[in-house]
Amino acid sequence: MYPPESPILKQVIAHLNKFIEVNEKDAQEILTFFEVRNLKKKEIIAEAGSLCNFNYFVLSGCLHMYFITDKGTERTVQFAIENWWMTDYLALHHRTASDFFIQAVEDAQILSITYDKQEQLLTQFPKLERYFRIINQISYGSSIRKVKHIYNLSKEEIYFNFITQFPEFEQRVPQFLIASFLGLTPEYVSEIRGKKRS
Amino acid sequence: MYPPESPILKQVIAHLNKFIEVNEKDAQEILTFFEVRNLKKKEIIAEAGSLCNFNYFVLSGCLHMYFITDKGTERTVQFAIENWWMTDYLALHHRTASDFFIQAVEDAQILSITYDKQEQLLTQFPKLERYFRIINQISYGSSIRKVKHIYNLSKEEIYFNFITQFPEFEQRVPQFLIASFLGLTPEYVSEIRGKKRS
Repeated sequence: MYPPESPILKQVIAHLNKFIEVNEKDAQEILTFFEVRNLKKKEIIAEAGSLCNFNYFVLSGCLHMYFITDKGTERTVQFAIENWWMTDYLALHHRTASDFFIQAVEDAQILSITYDKQEQLLTQFPKLERYFRIINQISYGSSIRKVKHIYNLSKEEIYFNFITQFPEFEQRVPQFLIASFLGLTPEYVSEIRGKKRS
Repeated sequence: MYPPESPILKQVIAHLNKFIEVNEKDAQEILTFFEVRNLKKKEIIAEAGSLCNFNYFVLSGCLHMYFITDKGTERTVQFAIENWWMTDYLALHHRTASDFFIQAVEDAQILSITYDKQEQLLTQFPKLERYFRIINQISYGSSIRKVKHIYNLSKEEIYFNFITQFPEFEQRVPQFLIASFLGLTPEYVSEIRGKKRS
């Protein structure tokens, strides 16, 4: 049981209530399905090639999901900050090995839930199906939008579009990771950031 | 009411039962929320810039979702064949104008549902939240996987990876659309297809 003033409890209630109705009693029970984990910056919590058995919810801090290219360089495909979920959904669904690594970009506090616990959670709280349906829909819609941007925008537009939409990332996330995520070189990103400042 | 032997009824029951339990009575009621539309090849059913108010389920045929680049060329971001859904999910969620056009690649038969009807449907059949949650999860996971492929694979690998995963597309979809979807030139696609045959 979390005390009523617990920041984790308050954050989870406030977040879920943006999508569905959840009272404190529900939230207390929902939280019993999760494990709280405190991560150090650069800590890796999921590895490509290992069974994808967890879904992660970020309470604070930032995670990124990446893979290692055939040329041996890391490529970030996704970031997750406060109140975002992160996992290799396809691998989690098919109960297969993940294609991606998940690493803390900053010290982070997360909730982790196993595939089986999530299924139990959804059986006990079917209204969470609606919550996950909506956030998956937003995530899917956003990734289609990203594909459009990759195809349509100039490198400079891709960068400024991203930091306009997610200004906090520019402060919190190392340039080379933003570059990796946007498919740009770190050199190019520092060049256009210089442009912007001047 | 659809007669029990109706192909549409049978298809919807068979498809939904891959994810949730739906009997014929449910399916009959579920179908009352949808409109059946028969589309001619090249018919456009959704336009970029207009309010995105529909979600589409493909009964037969093939749709593609595309946008027109600043240079004036069409770029396909998604295909939908039998039992796939298609809409601009982000625009549908935010009740805003769509970023994309949706067009029939072949003569097609689809089910269309408005945003409001879908909300009513989900209220009346909450178990469909689970169904949509799962397919959105698979779609989102697949689009992340696609971003990985764009970053990691050679042009040739991107093409063969796609036609291996979705062999029917090579027969059904014009080369220039597959090229557009994969971010390749039509010339390049016909070149590697030639390679494959030889």
